[in-house]
Amino acid sequence: MTQTEMQVARVVFTRGGVDESFHAVHLAVVDAGGALIASCGNPNLITFPRSSSKPVQALPLALAAPELPNDELAVACASHAGTPEHLLAVLRLLERSGSTVDDLRCGTHPPFDAAVAAELIRAGEAPTPLHHNCSGKHAGMLLSCVLNGWPREGYTEHSHPLQIRIRELHAELGGVDLEQVQAGTDGCSVPAFALPLDAAARIFAGLAQPSGEYAEAVERIFVAMTAHPFLVAGPGRLDTTLMPLVPGLVAKMGAEAFYGVGLRHSPRGPLGIAFKIMDGGERARAHVALAVLEALGIPLTPELRALAPATLHNWAGREVGGVRVDLGLAFTH
Amino acid sequence: MTQTEMQVARVVFTRGGVDESFHAVHLAVVDAGGALIASCGNPNLITFPRSSSKPVQALPLALAAPELPNDELAVACASHAGTPEHLLAVLRLLERSGSTVDDLRCGTHPPFDAAVAAELIRAGEAPTPLHHNCSGKHAGMLLSCVLNGWPREGYTEHSHPLQIRIRELHAELGGVDLEQVQAGTDGCSVPAFALPLDAAARIFAGLAQPSGEYAEAVERIFVAMTAHPFLVAGPGRLDTTLMPLVPGLVAKMGAEAFYGVGLRHSPRGPLGIAFKIMDGGERARAHVALAVLEALGIPLTPELRALAPATLHNWAGREVGGVRVDLGLAFTH
Repeated sequence: MTQTEMQVARVVFTRGGVDESFHAVHLAVVDAGGALIASCGNPNLITFPRSSSKPVQALPLALAAPELPNDELAVACASHAGTPEHLLAVLRLLERSGSTVDDLRCGTHPPFDAAVAAELIRAGEAPTPLHHNCSGKHAGMLLSCVLNGWPREGYTEHSHPLQIRIRELHAELGGVDLEQVQAGTDGCSVPAFALPLDAAARIFAGLAQPSGEYAEAVERIFVAMTAHPFLVAGPGRLDTTLMPLVPGLVAKMGAEAFYGVGLRHSPRGPLGIAFKIMDGGERARAHVALAVLEALGIPLTPELRALAPATLHNWAGREVGGVRVDLGLAFTH
Repeated sequence: MTQTEMQVARVVFTRGGVDESFHAVHLAVVDAGGALIASCGNPNLITFPRSSSKPVQALPLALAAPELPNDELAVACASHAGTPEHLLAVLRLLERSGSTVDDLRCGTHPPFDAAVAAELIRAGEAPTPLHHNCSGKHAGMLLSCVLNGWPREGYTEHSHPLQIRIRELHAELGGVDLEQVQAGTDGCSVPAFALPLDAAARIFAGLAQPSGEYAEAVERIFVAMTAHPFLVAGPGRLDTTLMPLVPGLVAKMGAEAFYGVGLRHSPRGPLGIAFKIMDGGERARAHVALAVLEALGIPLTPELRALAPATLHNWAGREVGGVRVDLGLAFTH
């Protein structure tokens, strides 16, 4: 094991006292100035924030639509659960650009919320692109195009002016050269950008403490997300449950177990945190998030601890094991 | 990285040419004599086969019920999808011991098969313990108790004669001392036993080429599982799709991404394979299974390759990435 391997954080799932499975985690924490202050594993790991990029993807919209209501800006940053409240906010956003569900290019999947998915089945209805967790982002992109004078057609393509602008914003807000921002395609067909983990942490530090030429629009995104945590995700989902419990905390999940967190208030001042669970193991996300918050001096209330239970129960409700976090956060200064 | 770490197999999920996520895998291959012939990572890793133990858990039943029809023996070894065909086989097995659904102590979860789960929702019905993927195992355990003169009551407890016998059988068939078989509790409340990976591989080598005092009953389990691959799992599930494609192959999935495979015919003779994907990432199981079969000289037909697609598509059907297996199987002799 090299030193880097040793520093990787681990979330271990145990059964009957035996380690059964574990998740390896790379993590970066930066301060408001963008300097790395702590890490696990490799803070320069090139990885995809996936939906944790949504606040960046919504920035051209926030800049072009200074009067956009907070709830619509929040759903533009969301990986939503497809509840009626989410769909209504997306529909309002679509209307502003004269768009309809037919203009959405995100594809279709059953709503994340199990109750909503079951209700669709009972009603004999198929899900539509509106139920896709990214439909708010796509509706926001359509409005962004109209307000910026870009064609709505082809808005998901890598060569579209909006996507070129979003790639530039990843570099600017992440504090890296444009060449360091690599491109793939996301589950909803827009470009997904890969960048170093510490650069992603810088984006979230910037959300916690906006500065520079986009400060006003970024502050509106922070306010929108923290004022409408339900719209950002949905029932029982981590962004929604975590944000109200820590004042000044903004958080956004990404697929394949990425997480970005901005902390406006901490003993070390405003901070940005980004981590990637290497196997995409979503079940370990809340455990890592709480462990790093605690390591950074945020007191863990019982309500916070309840988001990442330390015991595991089976289908019959019997306790069968536990979850242990070996964080080993290494402070660089 | 130590040599052991270097030898761990990896399944890498890529996006846009960038490695996005990966799964680490430990693997052991043994021959019919139980000798280790190849491995990845640590072949002595202590881990839980979980439902891959079901052929062992069904052995007391096979020994006590020499006339049990193959389909009922197959469903006693199953992690089934809850289709009507599965439920009927479980009901027949329950009847043989004068038991009913109320005697099952497995708990309840929605059927694994999405179509069956949706049908229950449409019908406004709740799942019962019969739908639990382990209900066949539990029905088999109840019959095992009756035929062996053990109480049905408390059949899931660690101290019950049936569970004590099953622990002993893990040691005997795995070729290890009883002390090496550690105990936890499974998702369905019966004991789950942990043992070294190569011992689990020995159990599957024994299924491929039964020998010793249990040979006849073990052969019946092999025949039952390979003759009824649908009953062992269900629509689209790996055991069900893999077994018919490789003559003489018996396979059983376990939770947290364990896999056990017995190969009756290979260029190296009968073999047993066991692997554990360390993070419990089930999505990588088919990729590892096919890579190891190929490395052991089993020709991969297009039908086999289709079980583990090398390309990834998003919700809109667009290709977004791929899957790469870095197996690095090290042969010891």
